[in-house]
Amino acid sequence: MIRLEIALELDYVIADPGCDFIFNIHAASTPRQLVVAESLTLSQPLLARVETEPVTRNRYLRLQAQAGPLKVAYRATVDLMHHFAPPGEVGEVPVARLPAEVLGYIYPSRYCQSDRLHRMAMREFGQRWQGYGRVQAIRDWVLERTTFTSNTSDSNTSAIDTLLDQVGVCRDFAHLMIALCRAINIPARFATGIDYGADPALGPTDFHAYVEAYVGDRWYIFDPSGTAIPMGFVRFGTGRDAADVAFATIFGTVNSSAPVIAIQAVAGADGHLQVPYHCTEAISTDG
Amino acid sequence: MIRLEIALELDYVIADPGCDFIFNIHAASTPRQLVVAESLTLSQPLLARVETEPVTRNRYLRLQAQAGPLKVAYRATVDLMHHFAPPGEVGEVPVARLPAEVLGYIYPSRYCQSDRLHRMAMREFGQRWQGYGRVQAIRDWVLERTTFTSNTSDSNTSAIDTLLDQVGVCRDFAHLMIALCRAINIPARFATGIDYGADPALGPTDFHAYVEAYVGDRWYIFDPSGTAIPMGFVRFGTGRDAADVAFATIFGTVNSSAPVIAIQAVAGADGHLQVPYHCTEAISTDG
Amino acid sequence: MIRLEIALELDYVIADPGCDFIFNIHAASTPRQLVVAESLTLSQPLLARVETEPVTRNRYLRLQAQAGPLKVAYRATVDLMHHFAPPGEVGEVPVARLPAEVLGYIYPSRYCQSDRLHRMAMREFGQRWQGYGRVQAIRDWVLERTTFTSNTSDSNTSAIDTLLDQVGVCRDFAHLMIALCRAINIPARFATGIDYGADPALGPTDFHAYVEAYVGDRWYIFDPSGTAIPMGFVRFGTGRDAADVAFATIFGTVNSSAPVIAIQAVAGADGHLQVPYHCTEAISTDG
Amino acid sequence: MIRLEIALELDYVIADPGCDFIFNIHAASTPRQLVVAESLTLSQPLLARVETEPVTRNRYLRLQAQAGPLKVAYRATVDLMHHFAPPGEVGEVPVARLPAEVLGYIYPSRYCQSDRLHRMAMREFGQRWQGYGRVQAIRDWVLERTTFTSNTSDSNTSAIDTLLDQVGVCRDFAHLMIALCRAINIPARFATGIDYGADPALGPTDFHAYVEAYVGDRWYIFDPSGTAIPMGFVRFGTGRDAADVAFATIFGTVNSSAPVIAIQAVAGADGHLQVPYHCTEAISTDG
Repeated sequence: MIRLEIALELDYVIADPGCDFIFNIHAASTPRQLVVAESLTLSQPLLARVETEPVTRNRYLRLQAQAGPLKVAYRATVDLMHHFAPPGEVGEVPVARLPAEVLGYIYPSRYCQSDRLHRMAMREFGQRWQGYGRVQAIRDWVLERTTFTSNTSDSNTSAIDTLLDQVGVCRDFAHLMIALCRAINIPARFATGIDYGADPALGPTDFHAYVEAYVGDRWYIFDPSGTAIPMGFVRFGTGRDAADVAFATIFGTVNSSAPVIAIQAVAGADGHLQVPYHCTEAISTDG
Repeated sequence: MIRLEIALELDYVIADPGCDFIFNIHAASTPRQLVVAESLTLSQPLLARVETEPVTRNRYLRLQAQAGPLKVAYRATVDLMHHFAPPGEVGEVPVARLPAEVLGYIYPSRYCQSDRLHRMAMREFGQRWQGYGRVQAIRDWVLERTTFTSNTSDSNTSAIDTLLDQVGVCRDFAHLMIALCRAINIPARFATGIDYGADPALGPTDFHAYVEAYVGDRWYIFDPSGTAIPMGFVRFGTGRDAADVAFATIFGTVNSSAPVIAIQAVAGADGHLQVPYHCTEAISTDG
Repeated sequence: MIRLEIALELDYVIADPGCDFIFNIHAASTPRQLVVAESLTLSQPLLARVETEPVTRNRYLRLQAQAGPLKVAYRATVDLMHHFAPPGEVGEVPVARLPAEVLGYIYPSRYCQSDRLHRMAMREFGQRWQGYGRVQAIRDWVLERTTFTSNTSDSNTSAIDTLLDQVGVCRDFAHLMIALCRAINIPARFATGIDYGADPALGPTDFHAYVEAYVGDRWYIFDPSGTAIPMGFVRFGTGRDAADVAFATIFGTVNSSAPVIAIQAVAGADGHLQVPYHCTEAISTDG
Repeated sequence: MIRLEIALELDYVIADPGCDFIFNIHAASTPRQLVVAESLTLSQPLLARVETEPVTRNRYLRLQAQAGPLKVAYRATVDLMHHFAPPGEVGEVPVARLPAEVLGYIYPSRYCQSDRLHRMAMREFGQRWQGYGRVQAIRDWVLERTTFTSNTSDSNTSAIDTLLDQVGVCRDFAHLMIALCRAINIPARFATGIDYGADPALGPTDFHAYVEAYVGDRWYIFDPSGTAIPMGFVRFGTGRDAADVAFATIFGTVNSSAPVIAIQAVAGADGHLQVPYHCTEAISTDG
């Protein structure tokens, strides 16, 4: 069991009165990710609704803010009870046996045009053992070919762009890996959290995007940009791709500052401090 | 109340043994769309599972077929109890009030890149009254600019392609209308059924794709290709776009013939025959 | 006759030894654009070749520089003897009569995918009088729909992107106008020079991109971004699109500063000062 | 010396009166490709102009036809005097030494978006010896990854599409090879002719598209689709890509039949019959 404390602070200056926000910055609450404690502080006296989307368990904070400054601070203590598995024992799930709620994740989406990449993915990965190792090979292929470079991509950048341009940030690595998985019928989804364990030389602690692939009847975690430690990922949201799980979707004109984010491992209820580390086993926080 | 009888027959010759199929050809079962009777006949002795996706209520028929011919025949009797509303009383729902399960339909998807069309949609439709009439104006704009032409589009064709090329089939009209709605934050989804009432000069009765937009706290039906009579639409599936709701997704090599499809209005339980007609009211089969 | 003095200074710091440059910063020399005097100063002792491409008359400065700083300064005095014509007398040239060397300019190019825009252009401009006024209508349409915004486009941005996104800089306005002209078989080319007459509020004097369209048996000047005074355009280069006529193409790693550019009208050989102004006549500096 | 006889017949039925055609079906006349004899027969009594574009030496047949049937028959006897070179002695030409009229062929064009492929091309080919062998490696890479399949591409298909989809016809192979060459600053152009030596199992003799790359101070011939015998290529046209050198550009509504094309080696003026064969040397018909 790993206990993590996270703290986020988002700062905006809102130009329009009545500006709507949809945030996805609450830790998801799942059987393997327990939200032990959490708090939300808003600098405006607003009605803030938090809704849980029943299928994904994403939690959306929705509010309508007044013109002027708005500070949103969220803190949580989260316990992760990972499922571990030996990679060699995690096989793919034949399409015929995929659960109905997983099926959607083999279809293409806005930023993951898997329908275009079937032949390329078959050429590169078609001959491999159909299991966790194949997904890992896709992850390694993406990481090996793509250079992490800030400010090379924007909200219009898709998996195909990243495949061609071979540069991007964590969002782009994730999209490309997802598209390649789906291209060979492996369900894959976009997950968001915090870049636990990232090298401080890359900048301050930030939001992170990574991948969950459905193999061995479970969603396993992969980090295609290779910048962080997957065992320390507290999941905020999952979706088809970045279109579904922005940290903040804003319907109006605002100025925003860079978010201030902190995450650290702390001692659990039993007094034991377990720090996330790079492990060779397949890990999952799925039910 | 309208009672419709539908009959589909799909014919395949399968090259690979153990070929997986996922069909979405069952009429959805909703409070306003009652499946009074239905039957499924397969020419191979197969286990056929029908699963209902809980959120969309799409029903998926999944089976694994043997090499050789496969005939899939589906028949159903369906009662539609439409909700009618005067268009002028159906307003848009502010983002702040959109239900969580509707939110996903304002985000871009594979074939509906609404994120690219915000400025264009604002220029064309930004000044209009925010209600059903604005959605209808988008529908009319798409219909007016696009020429229905068979064999001008393929499975890679997106809303942007249709906007540029100004030709397509019902799927393409639907994608473009959806993208424009979402571009101004009106939830819109892709719906599939049968082209009830289509001019026989356009060819035999066929599958159909149309649009549902969320206004007035409800999903209302729109037919952007203008080829059919919306009151006669029996819904099979809804999704983000065509990526989600193919009639048949096939994981293997098959030859297929053109489907044979029939639909007709029949007398209801009360002996009364109500034939679908083009109406000026807003109509919905949503709960 | 208009006499203009131009001065450019480009500053680089070169990382690689033996870095190749191709500049197109020399005023073209044509029967209607006389280079009265010019000078080139390089801060490194380099062999600098200036070659004239025979068909376009573009003049390319090519050099191979050493690592370290490089300053390139060019000054010229240029006399423009415009051809003027009443717009109503300038008709389009039927394809059958287009000169062979003009034909290439009705075909699509990297950033001007005119083949995609035929139907759209016919819808918008197909019914108009086939002459200068139709080209002007295209120019006005582009200007009306597109918002000049710095840093919204990059070297990958094409006419289709600008059509969709409705923002850009002079290069993007030019590409969209060119694509629409070619889509209805009006030859159009990309031209580069200096933004004579631009509002100083838009920033310091800069390079400029505009359009020449072939109507009335001659290449006439159009300024789709509407930011400058066409009569003051000293032409550097023309090409199919921006791919052909970059101010500087650099084969290596360099840092560059913003160019320092000046242009002003001065008294001509006869002592008379003619200042460029916005005129309603069609103007050309073509032979 | 190789002597080839070619015969083409194109058949149209024209709907509009006064329909313009631009054909590029005349053998180019160059120092190494001598047109010994040729004839053109038209089934309508039309004025037919043949113009030679001075830089490319492409010969364009232009005519304006009446409504009704039009048959265009062209026959020619052509002598090819190839330049041969040992591949290991053909180096690349540094950008600094590229002739001005060759420079345009390192820039991207409509169907060859080389600007997008720089990193990918550097990854695949950046470490190789800079000469003919590198171009050959690009040709082999394209051939190895792409499957020749009729009816998988259309007039909108570009090099990036072919890279992703990994299928196409000769035009698509050529575009992808050209884009990859330009991405590493090797000038490459699109060439058209007849598929001399193609396997009759692929269908009747047809037009062909191939590549010329500028190495060793000369344009050398490459056949990326690998379907024909390069030594038997009679060049019709060269251009930036297929946008420049269509066999027929038609400005109006016509029905066309498949062209009937024949090509064969015959005895030359000296009575000797030299049949084209697959050779290992670099070959060129450039000046």
